[in-house]
Amino acid sequence: MSAYQQIKQECYDANMELPKLGLVLFTFGNVSVADREKKVFAIKPSGVPYEELTVDKMVIVDFDSNIIEGDLRPSSDTKTHAVLYKHWEKIGSIVHTHSTYATAWAQSLRDIPIFGTTHADHNTVDIPCAAPMSDEMIKGNYEYETGFQIMNCYKEKGLDYTEVEMMIVGNHAPFTWGKNAHKAVYNAAVLESVAKMAWLTEQINPNAPRLKDALIKKHYERKHGPDSYYGQ
Amino acid sequence: MSAYQQIKQECYDANMELPKLGLVLFTFGNVSVADREKKVFAIKPSGVPYEELTVDKMVIVDFDSNIIEGDLRPSSDTKTHAVLYKHWEKIGSIVHTHSTYATAWAQSLRDIPIFGTTHADHNTVDIPCAAPMSDEMIKGNYEYETGFQIMNCYKEKGLDYTEVEMMIVGNHAPFTWGKNAHKAVYNAAVLESVAKMAWLTEQINPNAPRLKDALIKKHYERKHGPDSYYGQ
Amino acid sequence: MSAYQQIKQECYDANMELPKLGLVLFTFGNVSVADREKKVFAIKPSGVPYEELTVDKMVIVDFDSNIIEGDLRPSSDTKTHAVLYKHWEKIGSIVHTHSTYATAWAQSLRDIPIFGTTHADHNTVDIPCAAPMSDEMIKGNYEYETGFQIMNCYKEKGLDYTEVEMMIVGNHAPFTWGKNAHKAVYNAAVLESVAKMAWLTEQINPNAPRLKDALIKKHYERKHGPDSYYGQ
Amino acid sequence: MSAYQQIKQECYDANMELPKLGLVLFTFGNVSVADREKKVFAIKPSGVPYEELTVDKMVIVDFDSNIIEGDLRPSSDTKTHAVLYKHWEKIGSIVHTHSTYATAWAQSLRDIPIFGTTHADHNTVDIPCAAPMSDEMIKGNYEYETGFQIMNCYKEKGLDYTEVEMMIVGNHAPFTWGKNAHKAVYNAAVLESVAKMAWLTEQINPNAPRLKDALIKKHYERKHGPDSYYGQ
Repeated sequence: MSAYQQIKQECYDANMELPKLGLVLFTFGNVSVADREKKVFAIKPSGVPYEELTVDKMVIVDFDSNIIEGDLRPSSDTKTHAVLYKHWEKIGSIVHTHSTYATAWAQSLRDIPIFGTTHADHNTVDIPCAAPMSDEMIKGNYEYETGFQIMNCYKEKGLDYTEVEMMIVGNHAPFTWGKNAHKAVYNAAVLESVAKMAWLTEQINPNAPRLKDALIKKHYERKHGPDSYYGQ
Repeated sequence: MSAYQQIKQECYDANMELPKLGLVLFTFGNVSVADREKKVFAIKPSGVPYEELTVDKMVIVDFDSNIIEGDLRPSSDTKTHAVLYKHWEKIGSIVHTHSTYATAWAQSLRDIPIFGTTHADHNTVDIPCAAPMSDEMIKGNYEYETGFQIMNCYKEKGLDYTEVEMMIVGNHAPFTWGKNAHKAVYNAAVLESVAKMAWLTEQINPNAPRLKDALIKKHYERKHGPDSYYGQ
Repeated sequence: MSAYQQIKQECYDANMELPKLGLVLFTFGNVSVADREKKVFAIKPSGVPYEELTVDKMVIVDFDSNIIEGDLRPSSDTKTHAVLYKHWEKIGSIVHTHSTYATAWAQSLRDIPIFGTTHADHNTVDIPCAAPMSDEMIKGNYEYETGFQIMNCYKEKGLDYTEVEMMIVGNHAPFTWGKNAHKAVYNAAVLESVAKMAWLTEQINPNAPRLKDALIKKHYERKHGPDSYYGQ
Repeated sequence: MSAYQQIKQECYDANMELPKLGLVLFTFGNVSVADREKKVFAIKPSGVPYEELTVDKMVIVDFDSNIIEGDLRPSSDTKTHAVLYKHWEKIGSIVHTHSTYATAWAQSLRDIPIFGTTHADHNTVDIPCAAPMSDEMIKGNYEYETGFQIMNCYKEKGLDYTEVEMMIVGNHAPFTWGKNAHKAVYNAAVLESVAKMAWLTEQINPNAPRLKDALIKKHYERKHGPDSYYGQ
C-alpha cells in the first residue's frame, strides 16, 4: 500500500464530488489534497474521465511540482496547486473547476459583489477576480505563474487567504481551497451558487447596493467569529 | 419515546423535502413545526447535513427560544422562528431557505410584482420584501429582530399573514409558512417558481404590467374564496 | 370496467408525462383526452398530486362540462377544455401547464417571435398570445370564457387551430393540443423549449430578425407539407 | 451480420449519449459515423424516439446520399452530413443538435466570442456562425446546400475544419464533428457549455473584452500543440 494512501483516497473522493455537485463537464476540474508533514499532495491525473478514476490513479507531487508517485501525468494545472501549497502553508486542499456561473464572472473580469447574507456567511468582501496575466508570464511557465497571479491578487487587495477561500482568475475560472478536501469542495459549490445569485441580482435591479457593513459583519461572525453560533 | 415525537417526525420529513425540491444547497435552509398546545416547536439542528439528519436529532424549543429537548444546537435562525410563532398564532410551520431566485429578489431589495395567475393563485399582492434592518437591530439580538422586521413589514404594508404566507427579507432570503409543514414547504417551492417567472417576465418585457385586478381576484378566489372550486 | 377505459388510461399516461418532462410543479397542469364518438373527454381531477393519481381517478365530462363519470371534482380548467372540444372538432387532446418559460412570455403579453428552424419545424407563425380578458368576462363564467378568448385570438389573427397547436393566454399560461395525447404533450414540451430559446435569442441580440420566409416555409414543409420527408 | 456493424454500433452508442448530456429534446438531433474505407456512413433514422432506437435501425448511406442498407428513412439532415464527409476527408463523425444555448446564438446570427480559457482550450477563434442561406438555395436542395453553406463559411473566414470542429448555422442550430464519434459528441457538449458561458459573460459585463492573444495561444497549445501536456 502507498505511503500516501490517505490523501489519495481523500483526493479521489473529493474529485468524485465535483460531477455530483454539477460543477464540472467532462474533465474540466481537479481537486488536490496535501499531506503537510510529508510535503506532498495528491492530485487527479490529467484528462482522465471521472468514471475511469480510481484511488490508485491519483498522482503524488511535491511542492516543487516533482512527481513522487504515480504512473499517470498529473493535472495540467499541477504547478498552480504546488505554488499555492508552498506559499500558503495553511491550505490543506485546492479545487479548480470551470463551473458555469463563476467562470462567466471570471470571463467578465469583475469581482463578484457581496449582495446578501448567503455571500456574507462565507466572506466579508467581494470575491476577488485576479487580473489576466501579462503576456510575458503567459509565455513563460504559465501554470506556475498562475499561482503567483493568485497570490499577487491577494497581496494587492490586502486579503487573507485563510479568510477568503474562493476567488476567480480573470479570463479563466475559479479556484477555491480550505483546510481539507471537504471544505475546499464545499467552497467551490458555494462560490458557484453565490455567483449565480449575484448575476440574477443585477438583472433584477441594476442598482442593487452592496450589502451594508453591519450585516456583512454579523453574518460572517455567526459562522466564523470567536462567538460563532452556527453548526455544532 | 419523546412527548414531541409527532412534530419531530413532521419536522424531519419536511426538512428532507427541501433538497428534493431543489430549494437548498448543503444546509442552507430549515423547517420548523409547532405544537400549539404544548407551545413548542421542533426545528432542524444547526449545520447538520441533510443526509445525516434523523428524527431524533430534531430540537424542541419553546416560543421564547428556550431549548426544551435535544442534544444538538438548534438552527441559528431559531429565534426568528420563535418570534413568529409567538406573535402569529395561526402559523403551524415555518420554512427558511436561500433558494436561488427568491434570494436574488431579496438581494435586489424589491417586492416581487404580481404578473400572472400562477402568482394570483396564491396571493393577491406583490410578494413583500422587508427592508434591511437598522444597524442597531443588527448589532443587537439579530435573529430575534429578524422576526420583528418581518412582522413590521406586514404591519406597514397592511398585510395579513394568513393570506400572504410568503415573503423575502431584504439582503437575506425567503421565509414562508402555513398551517402545517406540508403547506409551508409547498409555499417555499411556489415562491421560488413565481420568483423565477417574474424575473423572466421583466427580461422579456421590461414594461410588463402588473396583473389586472379582476384576474387577481378571480384566481385567488378559485383556490381560496368561500366558493373556491380548486382541489377536492 | 368503465366504458371510457381507453381515454382514462391515455389521460392518466399523458398526465404522468408532464412532471417527467419538467413542465409542472405540484399540480399546476392537466391533460384531457377526448372520445369523439361518445362526445366526452377524460380529464385529471383537481388538485390531486401526480404521485396519487390512478387511471380510475380520471373524470369523464361531456362537451357541455357535465360530469358523466367519476367521484372526484375535475380540473378547475375543465370548462376551457370543454369549450375547445365542442368548437374545434379535430382536437383529440388538450394540455394546460404553467411551464416556466412559456408562462413568462404569457405574463409579458407578447407573441413568441419565430427566430429559427426549431420553431419553424412546428409552426409558420409567431406563437400567439391571447389578450387578457375583459373584466366582464373574468367576473362571469371565467374558465368557459377562457375557451372563447383562445378561439377569438385565432379568429382575429386568422390562424388555423390544426396548423398552430400551441398558444399562450396573456397573464396566464400555455395551452397546447393535438390529434391525440402524445401529440398534445409533445407540443407542450416543444413550446417550452422554443419559448426558452426565443428569450435567450433576444438577450444575445436584441435586434435578432424574425426567420426569413423561405426558411419558415421550407422547414415546415419538411415536417408537415404534402411532400414531407421527416419521420418514417 | 451487417458489413457495417461497427459503425452502426458506434453510431447507436453516440446517438444515445445526446439525451444523457441534455443536448436533445425528443428527436431533435442526430449523429453519424463514417467508414472511410467503404465510403459510407451510419446515421440515425428520421424521427425515431431515442428509447426505440436499436443498433439495427441505423441506416447506411454513401457520400452521395444513396441509401446502402437499412429499412428506415435516414435523418432528414442526411444530405448535409454526406456533403461534409465527401469534401472534408478527415471527418470521422458529425453531430447535429438543437441544444438550447448554441441554438440561441445561431438564432441571434452572431459568432460566439472567445471570452475565456474554456473556449481557448478547444478553439483559437470565435465559434463561427454561417449566414442564413439565399432564398434560392433554400428552395432548391436545402439540406445539400446546408453542407455547402457550412463549407463556404469556413472558406470565407479562412478556417480549418480540423482545427475548428464546432460551428452554428445561422437561424438554425449547431453542427460539430471530429475524428470519431466520441470526439464529435464531446464537441457538441463543449459548444453548448461555451455558448452558455458566453451569453452569461455579456450579461454580467456588456463590455467584456475578447480573450487576449497570448492566452488563446497558450491554452490551445496546452491541449493541441506539438508540445501539448494535457491528458495522458
